[in-house]
Amino acid sequence: MTHSIDLNADLGESFGAWTMGNDDAMLDIVTSANIACGFHAGDPSVMDRTVRTCLDKGVGIGAHPGFDDLTGFGRRRIHGVEPHKLKAMLIYQIGALSGIAAANGTRVRHVKVHGALGNMASEDLAIARVYADAVGAVDSELIVVAMAATALEKAVLDADLTIAREIYADRTYNDDGTLTLRSRPDALIHDADYAADRVLRMLDDGAVTSVNDVRVPVSPQTICLHGDNPAAVSMAETIRARLEAAGVKVESMKPETNGGH
Amino acid sequence: MTHSIDLNADLGESFGAWTMGNDDAMLDIVTSANIACGFHAGDPSVMDRTVRTCLDKGVGIGAHPGFDDLTGFGRRRIHGVEPHKLKAMLIYQIGALSGIAAANGTRVRHVKVHGALGNMASEDLAIARVYADAVGAVDSELIVVAMAATALEKAVLDADLTIAREIYADRTYNDDGTLTLRSRPDALIHDADYAADRVLRMLDDGAVTSVNDVRVPVSPQTICLHGDNPAAVSMAETIRARLEAAGVKVESMKPETNGGH
Amino acid sequence: MTHSIDLNADLGESFGAWTMGNDDAMLDIVTSANIACGFHAGDPSVMDRTVRTCLDKGVGIGAHPGFDDLTGFGRRRIHGVEPHKLKAMLIYQIGALSGIAAANGTRVRHVKVHGALGNMASEDLAIARVYADAVGAVDSELIVVAMAATALEKAVLDADLTIAREIYADRTYNDDGTLTLRSRPDALIHDADYAADRVLRMLDDGAVTSVNDVRVPVSPQTICLHGDNPAAVSMAETIRARLEAAGVKVESMKPETNGGH
Amino acid sequence: MTHSIDLNADLGESFGAWTMGNDDAMLDIVTSANIACGFHAGDPSVMDRTVRTCLDKGVGIGAHPGFDDLTGFGRRRIHGVEPHKLKAMLIYQIGALSGIAAANGTRVRHVKVHGALGNMASEDLAIARVYADAVGAVDSELIVVAMAATALEKAVLDADLTIAREIYADRTYNDDGTLTLRSRPDALIHDADYAADRVLRMLDDGAVTSVNDVRVPVSPQTICLHGDNPAAVSMAETIRARLEAAGVKVESMKPETNGGH
Repeated sequence: MTHSIDLNADLGESFGAWTMGNDDAMLDIVTSANIACGFHAGDPSVMDRTVRTCLDKGVGIGAHPGFDDLTGFGRRRIHGVEPHKLKAMLIYQIGALSGIAAANGTRVRHVKVHGALGNMASEDLAIARVYADAVGAVDSELIVVAMAATALEKAVLDADLTIAREIYADRTYNDDGTLTLRSRPDALIHDADYAADRVLRMLDDGAVTSVNDVRVPVSPQTICLHGDNPAAVSMAETIRARLEAAGVKVESMKPETNGGH
Repeated sequence: MTHSIDLNADLGESFGAWTMGNDDAMLDIVTSANIACGFHAGDPSVMDRTVRTCLDKGVGIGAHPGFDDLTGFGRRRIHGVEPHKLKAMLIYQIGALSGIAAANGTRVRHVKVHGALGNMASEDLAIARVYADAVGAVDSELIVVAMAATALEKAVLDADLTIAREIYADRTYNDDGTLTLRSRPDALIHDADYAADRVLRMLDDGAVTSVNDVRVPVSPQTICLHGDNPAAVSMAETIRARLEAAGVKVESMKPETNGGH
Repeated sequence: MTHSIDLNADLGESFGAWTMGNDDAMLDIVTSANIACGFHAGDPSVMDRTVRTCLDKGVGIGAHPGFDDLTGFGRRRIHGVEPHKLKAMLIYQIGALSGIAAANGTRVRHVKVHGALGNMASEDLAIARVYADAVGAVDSELIVVAMAATALEKAVLDADLTIAREIYADRTYNDDGTLTLRSRPDALIHDADYAADRVLRMLDDGAVTSVNDVRVPVSPQTICLHGDNPAAVSMAETIRARLEAAGVKVESMKPETNGGH
Repeated sequence: MTHSIDLNADLGESFGAWTMGNDDAMLDIVTSANIACGFHAGDPSVMDRTVRTCLDKGVGIGAHPGFDDLTGFGRRRIHGVEPHKLKAMLIYQIGALSGIAAANGTRVRHVKVHGALGNMASEDLAIARVYADAVGAVDSELIVVAMAATALEKAVLDADLTIAREIYADRTYNDDGTLTLRSRPDALIHDADYAADRVLRMLDDGAVTSVNDVRVPVSPQTICLHGDNPAAVSMAETIRARLEAAGVKVESMKPETNGGH
């Protein structure tokens, strides 16, 4: 059985005068924060505040780069970005957060790619390689959060970077380990206790059960949680409490303890 | 007489499909590039290309942060930016360029603040201190380019940062060492040889002569050149050639050789 | 006594994935909506949704143009915008909302300038004249909301535009009819019933009482309400209810009924 | 033989401090200007200046809306934009230019969609219908520029809008009347006289010859020219001169003379 697990969430998604999410609540639950870098969400002062709160609460600081698409919150697929531009855009964002971390006496420890770019990197090996290349170029010690069974996993491993495989507490899986489409009625899990049961079973079994009852082996280092609304925060709280009650140590991902390679 | 001098120019000001300036020509003339960081000009791939050209040509890499004002090219004074937001915005930009430098195996060596924010930091000590604070927080070894006799100079020295004092080859001076207003008919120098004469005399005398014939002592480490148009590039070439002909060593500013403190 | 009054509020300030304000509640209270035009807040689909809701509820549609400053929500004073650029920027925003109104079979009826640009236009006659010039150029039948005793009022009247003078339900006044500075402890009124009492007295007396007990004559056509938070919405509800209970007709401003000129 | 033809070009693509194209030269050649509306290029004051020059030179004013993608100049395909958001975004842009036209005492007469969105609307009938719907909603008298044999043509005709079919002077065609891919070595025509010959033959024959020597009937009302560089401007000049020398009347497209329906 896995004795320790990291919990990650996308945070720092407020922008200017607009607030999003429940960062204060979520930063008491998670051990890793994926911080928006100003391209799809976030701005320098939101990033700074989020980094400082992470430091206060011992939460691992991660960069969450996305497309340059504030209007679409980085959720629209933008095609035709030349590889060298995509790479520079990713390095820029990770570098910006690194500067803010450095100014607060700390550093970025992991990276997770956002939204539509994340989906594209999961499916398209060429894009995944640009991403892995960008991460490795800016800091080869960064841990890269990725789902198993994706082009992204392959690119991260091929680039000899450290991976933290993630599972979703509130999503169901296909037989090949990918997430079911959101359009399926059973794609999302809304019951907190059921989600917690599932997570505990995954950790215990080292496998997830697909929607077709196929056992898919998984060896996660981190669980993705959401904090977009009060119900999501409450589910995140329940999952953390249930993990701790079951004797799982909830702690920030570390380069040396992950099974990446 | 000063035996060595740095030449700096604002570069990397293209954006997306839009080209600005004559970077290739200027990067053969200057020894320090102030690279726009994507807020008032520049974008990640322009920054990346400029950093790589600097590396190729041995030009020192500098961050040129400005207001978040693409429309106004950072030349409009924006009032009411809260100090902690201004600081985060500056750190973000310097961090972004640092990431791109790191990805190219190098680092940012100096910083010069752009446009309206630069003018505000020259005049307003509170803003100058926020700027110096931001620079020191992200990397206390950065050399800060500043004019003598400004609030900015005071803030940089008070923050115990390394300063590189700059003079303008194509501008005239008031008796107190500040630049004359651009609205004056004699504010700008258009003749390349006259500008070169002036620069040589400044270096020789350790002083600039004001528009009222007052001698103002200056001890510059760098000369600001412009490359906005063919005439500006030609003036920059003339100044460099005249400096070299006079035996002045034109070389990139270095922390250890400047007289900052 | 004034038998009818308009109630206005700034609405449509959501942007992309970010929600702001309580537009649904406020659109049941006000008779005029000042709709952000995408420069400091709002986006095309938010504008479209807000216009359609205004149509459904019989609320007057107004343009609320501001500085091109999403990061600062249009609340930062931007100096040095050339008059012809400022004028074009204002026309662009009013035109954009007019297009959306036309596509919904209606039209923009009033205009109120936002935030820092509004403050600058209240104080600086040159800026006020550019604004009045822009409004008159795009549609000379637009009603311009403005406070009495401001440069803006003068520019609007000089340009022969229709004015709707506004008062603030939750602000106190100086002896000259301007608002007290927000930094004063008594600048803001937080008690809904006290605010309603004040508004009723203003309408009855045709005057507002300053913080120094000076009687300042006012003849308002519209009252500015806020909906930023639940308390503000509740105050707005109270004021409307109290106005109606007192026999004041709450109705949308109309060109023919206002006392502008 | 066609006795009159319109010449159109994309103009007003400068932005802020950045200049693009040779608008002054092109506005002496074309009879219709497709003016960028601030989303992929252009800004309010560039739009205003371009509208005024069009008025001075008798050039027809057209809106050239595109994706909200300044970084990518509207040339990157953005997928997943919800139809109602796409529609609002298009109306917003056309409305903004209409406001600027109105402020100059004129009006927008045609519309041509830009770049990646134009390509998507040519291929995808659902997107083409959203576009036609937007145009019709904001002003059903607008002439819509479109290529024959595209989804866009179908949507425009189905929406009962007036179409102006366009041909490209510097591009080669497939057997079905679509443009050859830019990746083909023979996709672009660089010789001005050859391009002029081709255009004259097309007008004479009422057909274009494909790269496979197939005759494809065309009945164009407008020819798309480019002004991105001096060679393009020179080709545009040659084509106009050759048309006039051949007795073709070069004049702005008009609702009543086009063969749309």
